[in-house]
Amino acid sequence: MVQAARQAGTAGRRAVFELFPRRLPQGRRYGVVAGVGRALDAIEDFRFDPATILALEGVVDADMLDWLASYRFSGDVWGYAEGEAYFPYSPLMVVEGTFAEAVLLETVLLSIYNHDSAIASAASRMTLAAAGRPCIEMGSRRTHEEAAVAAARAAYVAGFDASSNLAARARYGVPSTGTAAHSFTLLHDAEADAFRAQVQTLGVGTTLLVDTYDVAEAVRLAVEVAGTGLGAVRLDSGDLGEVAREVRAQLDDLGATSTRIVVTSDLDEHAIAALAAAPVDAYGVGTQLVTGSGHPTCGFVYKLVAREGDDGEMVSVAKRSTDKASIGGRKYALRRRSSSGVAEAEVIGIGAAPQDDGDDRALLVPLVEGGEVIGRATLDEARARHRSSLAELPRAVTQMSAGEAAIPTLHLEPR
Amino acid sequence: MVQAARQAGTAGRRAVFELFPRRLPQGRRYGVVAGVGRALDAIEDFRFDPATILALEGVVDADMLDWLASYRFSGDVWGYAEGEAYFPYSPLMVVEGTFAEAVLLETVLLSIYNHDSAIASAASRMTLAAAGRPCIEMGSRRTHEEAAVAAARAAYVAGFDASSNLAARARYGVPSTGTAAHSFTLLHDAEADAFRAQVQTLGVGTTLLVDTYDVAEAVRLAVEVAGTGLGAVRLDSGDLGEVAREVRAQLDDLGATSTRIVVTSDLDEHAIAALAAAPVDAYGVGTQLVTGSGHPTCGFVYKLVAREGDDGEMVSVAKRSTDKASIGGRKYALRRRSSSGVAEAEVIGIGAAPQDDGDDRALLVPLVEGGEVIGRATLDEARARHRSSLAELPRAVTQMSAGEAAIPTLHLEPR
Repeated sequence: MVQAARQAGTAGRRAVFELFPRRLPQGRRYGVVAGVGRALDAIEDFRFDPATILALEGVVDADMLDWLASYRFSGDVWGYAEGEAYFPYSPLMVVEGTFAEAVLLETVLLSIYNHDSAIASAASRMTLAAAGRPCIEMGSRRTHEEAAVAAARAAYVAGFDASSNLAARARYGVPSTGTAAHSFTLLHDAEADAFRAQVQTLGVGTTLLVDTYDVAEAVRLAVEVAGTGLGAVRLDSGDLGEVAREVRAQLDDLGATSTRIVVTSDLDEHAIAALAAAPVDAYGVGTQLVTGSGHPTCGFVYKLVAREGDDGEMVSVAKRSTDKASIGGRKYALRRRSSSGVAEAEVIGIGAAPQDDGDDRALLVPLVEGGEVIGRATLDEARARHRSSLAELPRAVTQMSAGEAAIPTLHLEPR
Repeated sequence: MVQAARQAGTAGRRAVFELFPRRLPQGRRYGVVAGVGRALDAIEDFRFDPATILALEGVVDADMLDWLASYRFSGDVWGYAEGEAYFPYSPLMVVEGTFAEAVLLETVLLSIYNHDSAIASAASRMTLAAAGRPCIEMGSRRTHEEAAVAAARAAYVAGFDASSNLAARARYGVPSTGTAAHSFTLLHDAEADAFRAQVQTLGVGTTLLVDTYDVAEAVRLAVEVAGTGLGAVRLDSGDLGEVAREVRAQLDDLGATSTRIVVTSDLDEHAIAALAAAPVDAYGVGTQLVTGSGHPTCGFVYKLVAREGDDGEMVSVAKRSTDKASIGGRKYALRRRSSSGVAEAEVIGIGAAPQDDGDDRALLVPLVEGGEVIGRATLDEARARHRSSLAELPRAVTQMSAGEAAIPTLHLEPR
């Protein structure tokens, strides 16, 4: 496309692309934006090194290879801050540059946003369902090895407390926490040997896995080995609520009243909610988190909404189609809020910013200016944004049942 | 775990781990193994470089860091060949080494197998449904940016013809093919300008996207610009079967009888099957492919099944649990076939290989010996394996409806 546009003389036209969802996943009341920080890294790093240029020989012509070799995004980007809630048609990212510069970013930006936001959207429902009990990300082995690192990061944005993924700790500072596998117990001649080895190395504050053989016997052994100061026990099978109640009673009887109970085993937001009344102290979540709990991608698209015409003026453009219509024109967005601070609508202006009624909040922040990243936020800022964004949404967002978007999306008439 | 086992003196015990599925995804009749080649790369490359060691300071102790710095897998691996069909409890990979060496590979091996096999399993059903018509992988932007490259590779193993992912071309030699986006048409002042620019650069053999505005008008323009030698047109919205029939009639009327029709738009195996009678020449598949068509992960697990005891003898081990039971002991597998070569059962021997009845096929091939990769296959060999493995399965595998596994899994008594 870029090569053809260059030959046609249109590649340098100013262009505005918009990254947005046409809808929320079926039944979801809100989504959560994640991947913004990774996308900014990707824009900064988007270069074609000599090896890549070599690999593209035969795909594009020599003139195009030269252009790619010196590629550097020099445009502007605005977007929703990481951790922000989103709704259908929220203009999550607005990219302005030449057509050639901006169109090349389509795939990487969509990949990052579609993946990371799918994980964060699921993670947010899980942390809501956990109602303050810590959630631990443990899904690395159920997704692509690099997606796993991004998933740990996105889950942390949406309120998870820690991850078992050490690369996420190294790259992004996501707190890490570990677990022992059944293989560790099975390696040893007796369960008590495994517990002793673990406590000797990691201290009594460690979490012992107690469901390899008989749970009650393992709990007895665990307290015998570690003492009543044992940090936690983990349950990974059976009726978790029922077993947790039995184990809590047993721990209390043994005097291990502050030993916590961590549960894992194909948890999702519904299973977490169902355990609300059980004596569970933390949830370890794997498969359902890293696969977006039924919605592994957000279906975001990246569409050209405005471009320069022959006369140098910007023109709104959109595909005309019955089932996949887009709305042309540069978008602006604010979250309309009541005087008491409750979100009421996602208001999208076309060609001009919607007017703030006094209690509203503008949603697009500058991310890149003239090719320079200016909107970087820390993960802790993203976590805080997630918390505050959720706090202002109507109470319906806490419902795990399927429903409509928590607030409507309103498009203002183009100005 | 490794640090604790090292301190307890058990880390050096010989261990046999098995990577296997407990079940097929709900309703699926078979699965397809993919990621073997990537897993072999990962085993070869599994080292802890100085930066990684630095990042692990504080996580493990200095002695453990020293051990990690010199880590190199020196054991043996057997597995199903890439492209092979699998069934519940198929022992897809058997890893033997010291506990410490083998347990460290768990996450990366599961990540690769769980992801790549999920994609290949979905892709295989799609290529079956396409019944010989080419399928093109176009889902990069709907999944994590690195998962996208692996997905393109896995789809190719399972019969896809090409991918739009150029990194998959560079890294793995997956044939690439492109498409123009609606943005390319919208960039230009008139649809005919966009078509002219594309044909001028890519020749009349290119594929023109004809549903940005009015399909009939675009088809007319496309043939006017490119001539009757136009390679193909692409449809990305509407009732694809109906529109394809109209476009075919129009192309034929215009004399463009050999111009092909490529369709895209949220296709899955069912949508592909439903278009069997429509004049469609190729399918471009995105979201549903890269998300495993409802099953984004295979749920493979990696379990310790045997390990050395105090006396140096190997002991079979397994978790005792009601809902997540494993079967201890080293596994061997063959596909039992009738005298006419039709697969009848997945036969799994525990501790010894099942006897070949004369028409059977052993399924485990040596992949790594003493740390050296010896079982590398080309992607074309994996594609051929996929075709021949499917060809010997009962005809039921071609049914897109939900059903049971195409063949039963039989465990022989341990010897």
